[in-house]
Amino acid sequence: MAQQKLKVMMLGGLCEIGKNLAVFEYGNDIIIIDCGLAFPDEDMLGIDLVIPDITYLEKNSDKIRGIFLTHGHEDHIGALPYVLRSINPPIYGTRLTLGILENKLAEHKLLKTAKLITVEAGSVVRAGAFSCEFIHVNHSIADACAIAVRCPAATVLHTGDFKLDVSPIDGGMMDVTRLGEYGNEGVDLLMCESTNVERSGFLPSEKTIASSLEHIFLTNTDKRIIIATFSSNVHRVQQIINTSAKFGRKVAVTGRSMVNVVGAAVELGYMNVPQNVLIDINEISKYPHEMVTVVTTGSQGEPMSALYRMAFSDHSQVELTSKDLVVLSSHAIPGNELLVGRIINEMYKRGVNVYHDDPEVHVSGHACREELKLMHNLIRPKYFMPIHGEYRHLMQHKELAEYMGMDPANIFVMNIGEVLELDKNGCKRAGTVPSGRVLIDGYGVGDVGNIVLRDRRHLSQDGLIVVVATVDIDERAIVSGPDIISRGFVYVREAEELMNEAKAIANDVLTKALDNGVTEWTQMKNSVKESLTKFLFSKTKRKPMILPVIMNV
Amino acid sequence: MAQQKLKVMMLGGLCEIGKNLAVFEYGNDIIIIDCGLAFPDEDMLGIDLVIPDITYLEKNSDKIRGIFLTHGHEDHIGALPYVLRSINPPIYGTRLTLGILENKLAEHKLLKTAKLITVEAGSVVRAGAFSCEFIHVNHSIADACAIAVRCPAATVLHTGDFKLDVSPIDGGMMDVTRLGEYGNEGVDLLMCESTNVERSGFLPSEKTIASSLEHIFLTNTDKRIIIATFSSNVHRVQQIINTSAKFGRKVAVTGRSMVNVVGAAVELGYMNVPQNVLIDINEISKYPHEMVTVVTTGSQGEPMSALYRMAFSDHSQVELTSKDLVVLSSHAIPGNELLVGRIINEMYKRGVNVYHDDPEVHVSGHACREELKLMHNLIRPKYFMPIHGEYRHLMQHKELAEYMGMDPANIFVMNIGEVLELDKNGCKRAGTVPSGRVLIDGYGVGDVGNIVLRDRRHLSQDGLIVVVATVDIDERAIVSGPDIISRGFVYVREAEELMNEAKAIANDVLTKALDNGVTEWTQMKNSVKESLTKFLFSKTKRKPMILPVIMNV
Repeated sequence: MAQQKLKVMMLGGLCEIGKNLAVFEYGNDIIIIDCGLAFPDEDMLGIDLVIPDITYLEKNSDKIRGIFLTHGHEDHIGALPYVLRSINPPIYGTRLTLGILENKLAEHKLLKTAKLITVEAGSVVRAGAFSCEFIHVNHSIADACAIAVRCPAATVLHTGDFKLDVSPIDGGMMDVTRLGEYGNEGVDLLMCESTNVERSGFLPSEKTIASSLEHIFLTNTDKRIIIATFSSNVHRVQQIINTSAKFGRKVAVTGRSMVNVVGAAVELGYMNVPQNVLIDINEISKYPHEMVTVVTTGSQGEPMSALYRMAFSDHSQVELTSKDLVVLSSHAIPGNELLVGRIINEMYKRGVNVYHDDPEVHVSGHACREELKLMHNLIRPKYFMPIHGEYRHLMQHKELAEYMGMDPANIFVMNIGEVLELDKNGCKRAGTVPSGRVLIDGYGVGDVGNIVLRDRRHLSQDGLIVVVATVDIDERAIVSGPDIISRGFVYVREAEELMNEAKAIANDVLTKALDNGVTEWTQMKNSVKESLTKFLFSKTKRKPMILPVIMNV
Repeated sequence: MAQQKLKVMMLGGLCEIGKNLAVFEYGNDIIIIDCGLAFPDEDMLGIDLVIPDITYLEKNSDKIRGIFLTHGHEDHIGALPYVLRSINPPIYGTRLTLGILENKLAEHKLLKTAKLITVEAGSVVRAGAFSCEFIHVNHSIADACAIAVRCPAATVLHTGDFKLDVSPIDGGMMDVTRLGEYGNEGVDLLMCESTNVERSGFLPSEKTIASSLEHIFLTNTDKRIIIATFSSNVHRVQQIINTSAKFGRKVAVTGRSMVNVVGAAVELGYMNVPQNVLIDINEISKYPHEMVTVVTTGSQGEPMSALYRMAFSDHSQVELTSKDLVVLSSHAIPGNELLVGRIINEMYKRGVNVYHDDPEVHVSGHACREELKLMHNLIRPKYFMPIHGEYRHLMQHKELAEYMGMDPANIFVMNIGEVLELDKNGCKRAGTVPSGRVLIDGYGVGDVGNIVLRDRRHLSQDGLIVVVATVDIDERAIVSGPDIISRGFVYVREAEELMNEAKAIANDVLTKALDNGVTEWTQMKNSVKESLTKFLFSKTKRKPMILPVIMNV
């Protein structure tokens, strides 16, 4: 019998894309589902990655019984190398998920201390007062699961990321039966992903890609074919290998993450490679051009990815010419359109034929509206929390749930850090816990915040002016300077006059301040700053950052 | 009879989107078609606008007989306020085009000196050895024209930007007859826009928007309707006004460029507004919420646009609530998806219903593949130069022309600054003239170049460290400092230890240099820079810009 209420909170993945992290707390037990990263917004200058603020987990680290992973994408496992520095509970995931995670943890030298426990779809794991069942779903990566969480207070179904594929490449269709059994038993809370809620209909099956690939291979028998896709899309790569084998082509793989994931997938048996098809990328020159397929990363135009390097003639093994066909088996993620456009132009300059943005060679991994309705139908929950989406996605998912017949009062569109409390008697919002984003910049975790970012933005827009002078406060005299150093403001050789005027103004201000007996450094510096800001803005309509450096002898 | 060859060159608009500018030179005469700006790439930090390098025109300013404008979009007229500072030929354009230009020139105080000459479709203008005919085309702005250029050496047809609209709102269908007559007479060179060459089929007519709008108005009779679109799309605004009038709504206009363009269009008779429909934006509160339509700028999510301010509760007259419906009558231009997404989320947070990215409420202004084929069919040119597009668009347009039967040897995919020379006997590439991009930053035209941008990028990524010290070279001693000032690098209060270590290293390096009798400032500064770069990278994996400021007493 339930003595307590179940608390559910997301520390990431609500009102944002990425850094998915769900927390379940019952009495003295906490479990976590997923621990992902997000990529920085374009105004987070210089930032490499963003992870969730886990202050709440650090404060309650003694309660944490386990981290459960739905699948191996970055936005679900990518924060672990940072989070495991302060908490270290057992981590449960399917084989491919943990295979990818192991690569990652090895890079961060955390593999020895991490406690990884392999499960499979159907496994039930007990963790404190919780028991969690992994349920097979389809997604753009193999071995993805939904997770059913039971505790004395309630049963929760967390979909992870999913879609329905009625003719999947491997691993079988999403386990609608098991999901339906949970629905029949009674699920209190459904937490369902919302990424594609703006897209109508059902997704086509991953298998439909095969015939598009065949058509491409049939009509390009004289070309080397280079296909870029997400490295984690094991089934896509499998289909490329199958089609290549059918046409007698050898397949080489390039790009660090592609090599890693394909290696892990082959080793763990998630990929079935016919003998003598895979060759090393260094060996492609040994085969006739038209007998080679290259599978590569870089489908989002990422700078320094393998495809980017090919496009800019900077790849050691692959030089693109008019004898190549490049296929982008992908769709540009919002924000990446310009990057993708840039490499396509570069490839055209090399005479390469490029297939891109063709719905025939890419299928999304996220449930569209009819698939979401299927999930709602199977689970028929008492309460619903849309997850994994920006605010508008969550709201549209709420509307979809209402369309399916749910009472709006039972639907909870939440923000990160907000706590939902439930048991058999009801469900309500119950305060908040600390949450937010922690920025990763180089080795630094959280040492870049708003002040540093504000300065970077300021510097990026109009650059910098350093005003240097040495004064003798007692003698009320300028001993040396003022000199002006500028960076990122204006091309100095062509702006000598402007710089001389600025110098004269700084000199005037300092002289006046010294004459007036000013001895406060701050006051002296502020006068210089204000006068120069005003002068430079009037001349250039720009506001560079001004750093006065005034020293006393 | 032709004594000379015609030279054709583009100073902008090839292998890029925007800053369209075509130059035609015959003997001692030069004419120009369009003079547009481009928006900065995301790596041009702090830059406001980009215009073409017109060195060649400045050097030959005595030859220039006129600037001919195809239509009033920024990428066709936006560079004029800058270009007119160094050249000032007569400018020919249709009424609306010049109406929009006048607003612009007035802002730059250039209206009095500019020589604007109004023409209409069908007008033929003589300019030196050239005669130019304006030919009516459809586009997403009214009063758009193609221009036929004749000189003794050749006849050239420049399409401007165009599409075919068989049921246009106003101004009639593109003048296919006149275009066809030119085709029958014989056109030597076709210069045809390429923006939508990747889109198949014909565009729907602008008029199809009307029934979509009616449907939206019919199903939202209880809401205020706010529609965002491009201010220059006069016909779209006309349809919004018509539909509003039909449903008894008042229409208010907001956003600076929307107010300007609607003002000009009404005044010039390009818009037909029923009496008592338009109201001032300050008066909307006098009418019932559901009897008001607001037409606004900001459909691309532009920061500080009227819609942006509404979304962020910063618009003086319009406060968005759940009683509002916002329609984005637009499609996000590549690169703007994230901006658009951000304001949609904000509006959802205010309970606003948002229609966006719906092909039913937006039609592009640029010819798709079948429309391009129509143009090729009408003109049947001897030679062809695809224009207005990135490299891949130009190449796909070349393929389209080959599909239409052209000899690949007669198709010229050019770059900006490349000269094409032709007469009745042939056509060939003939060298280059200076070309490139000039960056506008505040009042500065061209004073920000690669070095300044490189510094801005460096500063934006990892910030800045200034190392300050005063030394006494003769005494070989440090008199004051070294001190360290940082901006945009790390949150200093939490990195005291790091800063102290850095200071100690700077001190060591300086002391050693002085002990060794180093007197070269450059050498001393470089040692400090190198040691600190190495140290900070080893500790943080970041490379801030390091500015050593070392003064001698």
